[in-house]
Amino acid sequence: MKNINKKKVNAAILIIGNEILSGRTQDLNVSFLSDWLNKKCGVTVEEVRVIPDIENKIIKNILQLRKEFNYVFTTGGIGPTHDDITAKSISRAFKRKYEYHKEAYLILEKYYGKGRFNEGRKKMAKMPRGSSLIYNPVSAAPGFIIKNVICLPGVPSILKSMIDNVRKYLVKGLVVLNQSIRLYTIESNISKELKKIQGKYLKKVDIGSYPFFRLGHIGVSIVLRSSNKKKLELCFLEIKKMVRKKKIKVFKN
Amino acid sequence: MKNINKKKVNAAILIIGNEILSGRTQDLNVSFLSDWLNKKCGVTVEEVRVIPDIENKIIKNILQLRKEFNYVFTTGGIGPTHDDITAKSISRAFKRKYEYHKEAYLILEKYYGKGRFNEGRKKMAKMPRGSSLIYNPVSAAPGFIIKNVICLPGVPSILKSMIDNVRKYLVKGLVVLNQSIRLYTIESNISKELKKIQGKYLKKVDIGSYPFFRLGHIGVSIVLRSSNKKKLELCFLEIKKMVRKKKIKVFKN
Repeated sequence: MKNINKKKVNAAILIIGNEILSGRTQDLNVSFLSDWLNKKCGVTVEEVRVIPDIENKIIKNILQLRKEFNYVFTTGGIGPTHDDITAKSISRAFKRKYEYHKEAYLILEKYYGKGRFNEGRKKMAKMPRGSSLIYNPVSAAPGFIIKNVICLPGVPSILKSMIDNVRKYLVKGLVVLNQSIRLYTIESNISKELKKIQGKYLKKVDIGSYPFFRLGHIGVSIVLRSSNKKKLELCFLEIKKMVRKKKIKVFKN
Repeated sequence: MKNINKKKVNAAILIIGNEILSGRTQDLNVSFLSDWLNKKCGVTVEEVRVIPDIENKIIKNILQLRKEFNYVFTTGGIGPTHDDITAKSISRAFKRKYEYHKEAYLILEKYYGKGRFNEGRKKMAKMPRGSSLIYNPVSAAPGFIIKNVICLPGVPSILKSMIDNVRKYLVKGLVVLNQSIRLYTIESNISKELKKIQGKYLKKVDIGSYPFFRLGHIGVSIVLRSSNKKKLELCFLEIKKMVRKKKIKVFKN
């Protein structure tokens, strides 16, 4: 793994699944993956897409995103049923043969037992020729990586159990650090001041402002993000100074 | 609103916001919007994208998605702070002047009072020339629609309060109905049978299979979706017949 000359490394997440699009299932993988990739690998997620289980849509999005970003992570569609078409679609995208991966086949055969290793279960050993496995300590069926595309399952607990096995395949980038403060105010009360501070730290610190309502209180979260620790702290000091000057109360937790 | 000759009407959702990408905030708007659009308007969400607050990314995605889908819904980036750049970016995408909308200006001036109608608050009245307003009964600042792009706020409770004001702008399409059953089984135990039934109802009913873990139980949700009620029911009967034949226990709720 390259670790010298650190630079920005980015990624996209492609969620494959009608159940997320229809609103039936709430996605939980984006927040976990984004956070893990940044903290553990210095990889910043810069785009997320959710698409249905349709082969030509998967192919089109994979080819677009893998050109635009350093890595593409897919979630979903690698199980045993007819609507699990991620591995096949990615084989087509790369014009690679969709075939049994020998090691994956042996892992699954051992897990299920020869007598119960049926057609659906065998399907989970099929992937594009030349893929490397991402081991699954929970339910055996592996994910895979081919070129800069990493395919993970959609079930959040299984995805989480596998994620450490992804790390060795990634080039490490700059970790984005953050600082935040939650204020008893409304955005339009501090917009002028924030704009001024953002102008001063342009391209060094990214300042976000997010209104929220909680337990009967109205508030604004100010979130600072930067890969430069010193600039981040300086900018945060200016925000805190502005807050004191305007006599704005700060939420305690 | 056209209501005769019903046909498929689709949409994309474009979530604009670094806070969702970074994993700090969990998106809640996709599941609400998808469900509301389907049930109330017969509009099917077929793609979701999450992108950062960067002008050229907003422009590129708006222009791509509005060509590919009947409607594009954006969420986020229409507040008073420097990182709220949705309205300005969409003006650029459409090569329209970014200017005060007279009615929006009056609404906001009345809401805040002349003396407290500061720069940040005035910004919320700016939008692409020719936009129509989507009224906001909670916090006054309106959303807007221009051509087939509908811009809504990111705060879920405000978005929800405004959504009924969107309906009059949409052409109504076919509502997708669904049926589902939750089984005490694993996917690979029924994959062969599901594939066969899906083959029979190809392009008529969409059958999805989703594993889950809950309260110590392992299960699979089978979800059927179709705009043809009769086919949906027939297909559901076949699923239930298969379940009985294989002696699979059904979750009660």
